[in-house]
Formats: sequence, structure tokens, C-alpha cells
Amino acid sequence: MHNIKLTLAYDGSDFHGWQIQPGQATIQGALTDIVRKLTQEKLTVHGAGRTDAGVHALGQVAHFKTQSGLSAGEFQRAFNALLPPSIRALTAEEVGPDFHARWQALAKTYHYRIFRGAVVPPFERRYVLHYPYSLDLPRMIEAARLFEGEHDFFSFAASTGSEEDDRERATLRAIYRSELVASEESHTLTYVVRGRSFLRFMVRKMVGTLLEVGRGRLAPADLPALFERRDPSRSGPTVPPHGLYLVSVEYPDPAASLEPRP
Amino acid sequence: MHNIKLTLAYDGSDFHGWQIQPGQATIQGALTDIVRKLTQEKLTVHGAGRTDAGVHALGQVAHFKTQSGLSAGEFQRAFNALLPPSIRALTAEEVGPDFHARWQALAKTYHYRIFRGAVVPPFERRYVLHYPYSLDLPRMIEAARLFEGEHDFFSFAASTGSEEDDRERATLRAIYRSELVASEESHTLTYVVRGRSFLRFMVRKMVGTLLEVGRGRLAPADLPALFERRDPSRSGPTVPPHGLYLVSVEYPDPAASLEPRP
Repeated sequence: MHNIKLTLAYDGSDFHGWQIQPGQATIQGALTDIVRKLTQEKLTVHGAGRTDAGVHALGQVAHFKTQSGLSAGEFQRAFNALLPPSIRALTAEEVGPDFHARWQALAKTYHYRIFRGAVVPPFERRYVLHYPYSLDLPRMIEAARLFEGEHDFFSFAASTGSEEDDRERATLRAIYRSELVASEESHTLTYVVRGRSFLRFMVRKMVGTLLEVGRGRLAPADLPALFERRDPSRSGPTVPPHGLYLVSVEYPDPAASLEPRP
Repeated sequence: MHNIKLTLAYDGSDFHGWQIQPGQATIQGALTDIVRKLTQEKLTVHGAGRTDAGVHALGQVAHFKTQSGLSAGEFQRAFNALLPPSIRALTAEEVGPDFHARWQALAKTYHYRIFRGAVVPPFERRYVLHYPYSLDLPRMIEAARLFEGEHDFFSFAASTGSEEDDRERATLRAIYRSELVASEESHTLTYVVRGRSFLRFMVRKMVGTLLEVGRGRLAPADLPALFERRDPSRSGPTVPPHGLYLVSVEYPDPAASLEPRP
């Protein structure tokens, strides 16, 4: 049995997210269809993060286990020949049998891109949030830092509509880096966040909250109370998916990777 | 009567080119529809260059004449509110009554982008030609320079299928700059060409010819004979439209522009 690790980039615009859904175009569905055709095995491709509809990836990681005689490099070339050009396999390598893209991820990094100029270049329209309003950047930069550390992110999670369920979910999360980077020349803001794992819509609600801070509707000093009150209606709105990128996924012990087969 | 000059950027992917065609989505059609709705006048928006289906623009120039009371800035905002996000009005200004986007253009600059890496990033797939084959760059760079000057570009024009017509067309063109720029880091080649005016498919056939030189099927020394033989079947193929950008259009006497109305 061979365990193949893939690094993937995709334009999420035309997909209903990562996760397989019957009758919908999804990234996991497209990959799984192809690997089943290539191997004649009933296997599934597992991803590190289940990106939502419209969210992009520069470095999603996935794996699948197969008895196929195709090498990792042959799988990569076959994927890129058979996948739509909106999904690309950047690398493929054989890894140890215990590697699991989701369960072994130590950290994920997401970027959220905001375009502040008056007119969005047409080539960027699917890849940035357009936010041409005046913003208090120093306060946003200060607030972004306050997400770092371990917090209960209940107020920054998707509301399931069921309070019982919400209360039972573990919403404690560790954020290693939370930084807002402004580029004056390109009129862009990039929010960079790195953490162990994230709740659904969490990054998008964190960005929505930073924008509320930038607009003066919230202050950096309000963040501790937002964590404490455990009320998603008090944090900022969930910003649209098309500014969000899964940039990279980190794993322990890269030495455990096997050499690619000849 | 006011004469409004527009600078436009567009993603040509979803359009059947610049020129109005009944029942087809075109850039000129989209602009003309909107300006007619805004003004209730039966006018037409005229462009500097009639870009073909799939060709992009970073700086197309157009104009229209109107009796409307809307200022140039109001027209720009209305265009950007009503156009699809794949077309943007970058600037709008009132110009003198004699300004004509097409007839007064002194020079146009086009870029053609080629991606040479093994895997095209999904976000670039609509915006570059993928050409992952080995190329003799010094010879291509040398050949690109040979397009500069005044030549009969009959061999680099679209064949109309009618020899009579072709022979009667004036195919002499002046090229002011023709340069191939290679970026090793980004695996890209950008062909930059600036000239007074261009025949249909001319830039794409010039790029196709440069790629034939890069592949060793033509030599820089073959170019004088290609001009002389007047035979489009001897030059390189017409490369696809999605790598081509109309970057800018130059006009005489900018001092003739009026100040924008308040």
C-alpha cells in the first residue's frame, strides 16, 4: 500500500468548496473521481482543510492510499492532465503509511486579501474583497495582534442555529500568528493568520471584525469582551469567501517521508 | 456636445472581442448599451483597437460624444456601477471635440505573456499561454528585434481567404519597439510590441513566429525572407488570444484635453 501526499492550488470560484457533495462540483470530488479512474480502487482523497465554497488554495495538502503501481510523479502528471485547469497538483510524493493530511497537520496558514482602491482590476475580481472605504489601519493592526494566543473562538464561529450543539462544541483554538499587512502601492491589505486549526467561518469572521474595528464600530479594547461573551452576533460579519486563501499546511517530522519511487 | 475619453481595462475571457456583434457579448456592446441607457441618446462608443475574442486590455482607450449633463467622473462611476466586473473604466475625462480614440492614436503597445513552468498557477490560467517546452531564448530575443522598423507585414496578417482582397490591402506597418523580456524567477516571457497600428492577428502571428525561432524551426535570418515572400503560411501559427493584452494607447497633444467639468 502506498500513501501519496499532494500539494494543491485551486481557484475556488467555480467550486462548492472542498468537501464531496452529491451533484455539486467540489475539489475533493474532482480529485477522488480521477484517482478512482486511475487506480480502479474505491478510495477517497483526504484534505487538510475543508475549504468552503469560493475559498482558494495556494497550498492545500491532501493524501490517498493506493495499491497502484503509478509513482507519485506519474500521479501528479496524470492529475494535471485530467483535472480542470482551476485545480493543479503542485507536488506529489510518497509518504509513510501513518501520514494523514488532516489529523497530522500542526499548523495552517490562511491569507485574506482586501483591495482598497476605487476600481478593482478586472483580473483580480475573483481574488480580492473590494473594500474602498476609509479604514483606521493602526487600530486594525493593533486588533489583529490580539487574536494571537489561545482563546475561546465561540464568538467567531458559524452559528449552527442550535444552542445546545454550539455549547457542546470545543471552541478553544490556538493562534500562532495574526497580522495585518498593508501595501500602499498596490492598495491591498493582506490578513495573515497561522494556527493549529480553525472553526468554520472563523477566519472570515475575524476579518469581518477587523474591518469593524477599521470603521470605528468596534475598538481593539472590545476584543477580550467578544471572546468572553460567547456571542457570534457581537463580532463582525462573515466576509465573502473569494478573498480567502489556504496558503500552507505544516506537518511534523518531514524525515518520515519516503523517497519517491523510481 | 461633450466628448468623453475613457481608459478601460477588461478581462477578455468571457467576451466575443471588442466590436459590437448582434447576439454576442462584446466590450463595445456592453459600453454602448450602458451609455445609451444613461443618456437616452443613440450614440456609439468608439475604441482605439478592435481587440479579438479572448484578448485582454489594461489600457484600451475609447470615446463617445454626448449632450448629457453627466460629468466625466459621473460617467466613470456609473459605468463601474453598471458594467460587469470584468470591464472597468479606469479613467474618464472630457476632451476636445476633435479627439477620436481610433483615428488619432499615434501608437499602441501590446504585451503577450507566456508561462514556461511545468504547472500553470490556477489563478493565471486565463491570462498566459502555457508553453513548457525548451526554447532558445537568445535567438528569440534576436529575432524579436528584427520586427522593429517599417516592414510589409502581409506574411503576419490574417488570411482573408480572398487573394484579391489581400493584395489590395495596405500591409506596410511601422514597429517602434519589439522586445522579448524573460523573467527567470516567474518562468514568464513577455513580448512587448509598440507600433502605429497592427493588422488583424499580427501580434499573435509575430509571437507564433518567435516561438518557431525558439524551437529551432525558423532562424532569425529567415525573417527578411518572410517579409519578402508575402505568404502567411510561411510565418508561425497564430497563438491563442488569452496571452494578449492591449496595454496602452498614445495620442498627440494632451494639452488639448479640457479640464474635467465640476
